[in-house]
Amino acid sequence: MCPTIVRMYTVFAGGVGASRFLQGLVQAVDPAEVTVISNTGDDVEMFGLHVSPDTDIVLYALAGIVNPETGWGIAGDTFAVVDALQRFGYGRWFNLGDRDLAMAIHRTRLVHEGVPMHRIVAGLAEAFDLRTKVLPMSNQPVRTQIAGPDGVIPFQDYMVRLRTEVEVREVTFDGVGAAHPAPGVIEAITDARGVILAPSNPFVSIGPILAVPGIRDALEGTSAVRAAISPIIAGQVVKGPAAKMLATLGHEVSAVGVAKLYRGLVDLMVIDEQDRDLAPQVEALGMRCFVTDTMMTSPERKAALAADVVAAMAVA
Amino acid sequence: MCPTIVRMYTVFAGGVGASRFLQGLVQAVDPAEVTVISNTGDDVEMFGLHVSPDTDIVLYALAGIVNPETGWGIAGDTFAVVDALQRFGYGRWFNLGDRDLAMAIHRTRLVHEGVPMHRIVAGLAEAFDLRTKVLPMSNQPVRTQIAGPDGVIPFQDYMVRLRTEVEVREVTFDGVGAAHPAPGVIEAITDARGVILAPSNPFVSIGPILAVPGIRDALEGTSAVRAAISPIIAGQVVKGPAAKMLATLGHEVSAVGVAKLYRGLVDLMVIDEQDRDLAPQVEALGMRCFVTDTMMTSPERKAALAADVVAAMAVA
Repeated sequence: MCPTIVRMYTVFAGGVGASRFLQGLVQAVDPAEVTVISNTGDDVEMFGLHVSPDTDIVLYALAGIVNPETGWGIAGDTFAVVDALQRFGYGRWFNLGDRDLAMAIHRTRLVHEGVPMHRIVAGLAEAFDLRTKVLPMSNQPVRTQIAGPDGVIPFQDYMVRLRTEVEVREVTFDGVGAAHPAPGVIEAITDARGVILAPSNPFVSIGPILAVPGIRDALEGTSAVRAAISPIIAGQVVKGPAAKMLATLGHEVSAVGVAKLYRGLVDLMVIDEQDRDLAPQVEALGMRCFVTDTMMTSPERKAALAADVVAAMAVA
Repeated sequence: MCPTIVRMYTVFAGGVGASRFLQGLVQAVDPAEVTVISNTGDDVEMFGLHVSPDTDIVLYALAGIVNPETGWGIAGDTFAVVDALQRFGYGRWFNLGDRDLAMAIHRTRLVHEGVPMHRIVAGLAEAFDLRTKVLPMSNQPVRTQIAGPDGVIPFQDYMVRLRTEVEVREVTFDGVGAAHPAPGVIEAITDARGVILAPSNPFVSIGPILAVPGIRDALEGTSAVRAAISPIIAGQVVKGPAAKMLATLGHEVSAVGVAKLYRGLVDLMVIDEQDRDLAPQVEALGMRCFVTDTMMTSPERKAALAADVVAAMAVA
């Protein structure tokens, strides 16, 4: 006799913008009513350890320990191990803190023991006493690749090593053809009251999640209200390469450009007040447009944005 | 056209006593004339990482960075990672420092890539700019096991977790039947001018090395002068459980007890001045006995002991 689990809100999340939105959402609603589907396309093997940057950003943000300066890593972390690894010829570009590395060591051990990723992430969430459920998008490895003028490189090389100084011509997801949604992912989309695409990069944060076979179909078919928050504000992005990617991939660098990418996938598009004039163009795409202050500059603004989005979804 | 390599001194080494002796030896003779055969029987998987305590003690000691307080680990190391690992339920008993852990991360990556241990250790020695050659006793896993009243436990459980508070009834070496001496080990014994069994525990430091098929035969057959330094001084041990083990395994707890274990394997037994009276009993075993101050209480005393041993071997 299992109790019926009502997953009120399911959030597609990748990266810093998503984690900031989630920090607000768990203030605006009961954290236990939130399920996160996390991008694992940027997972990377570093120093032989399995690192899941986007999932860890979400976990750290929900645990209240994320470094507020960077948006990733753990506040006050030290870097003794990566410093010491220099002696053995490792590059210093992937700056993993000691406490962050403890997480990677633990995850790697479990991966080698054959524990599926959704159970690993559930255990990590439990270790941080989170009431929010965090699901990796898939238990199978999917690796986001960036095609630029000089060839194809793994995502973290593009993002961290080359600091996004590459003209992105295509984004692909190695292994995605053989990937399945992690246990619970489809239910989290189908059974939710609302599904929210966080203000994340549409190509490398939300894109990998949608590319896992079955997830896009579930999102198209769910009876949940579906909303997206534009990561583009006044033609710019708060953090990350989303604006540059929209341009080089041939899209309009605006909330409208983002809305077009999500056509058919969302009922509601949330855009910033600075983009108020774009609302008619968004609505012309067959979705409602909700205008609010989307700049998450403080804990209060994060919570207010989340409350606004939840309220807008309730009347959608 | 390979140059003839004359390995002047080859040292069987395991643990803190061995590393202290080696620190003296590389002052007394050219470090490039020393080859170390290191015990890997106490290697352990910890947090999913491959840790080689005895080999690392040797490397750190030769690199001049070993923690002089403990005799193991790196001086000034921090413990951020093991602290952070507590959250995930790991015991805190194996206190691996952050810089020490960097070494384990690097070694583990190479092990998983299939690099043989002797190449890994050679690379580590190179990373520390060592002129001394360090060889693991074997590239195959050999795991020292301690049989006590409550069953058989791995060596590090006995040594670190249970702080040697177990009555040792038997010492065995899992996997040793399938192990081979690492490349270079037999040559280091056969071609040396002198082979030295460091003042290490005969059962769990020197014992595993001698148990690798072929090594005992090589030591018995070499034309090198063979010496051992007793780790037992006045019936006690400076560090570690050697004295307790001699007792529970049915041996005399003295330099004579150690000498009996090495009968047929060494030409020269070095004992401490405090045990001067035991010299006749040692010589009665068919080996020369050299009496000197074996307490390695300072860099000068370490060098003096090594110089004494080398001098005694020259006239053996």
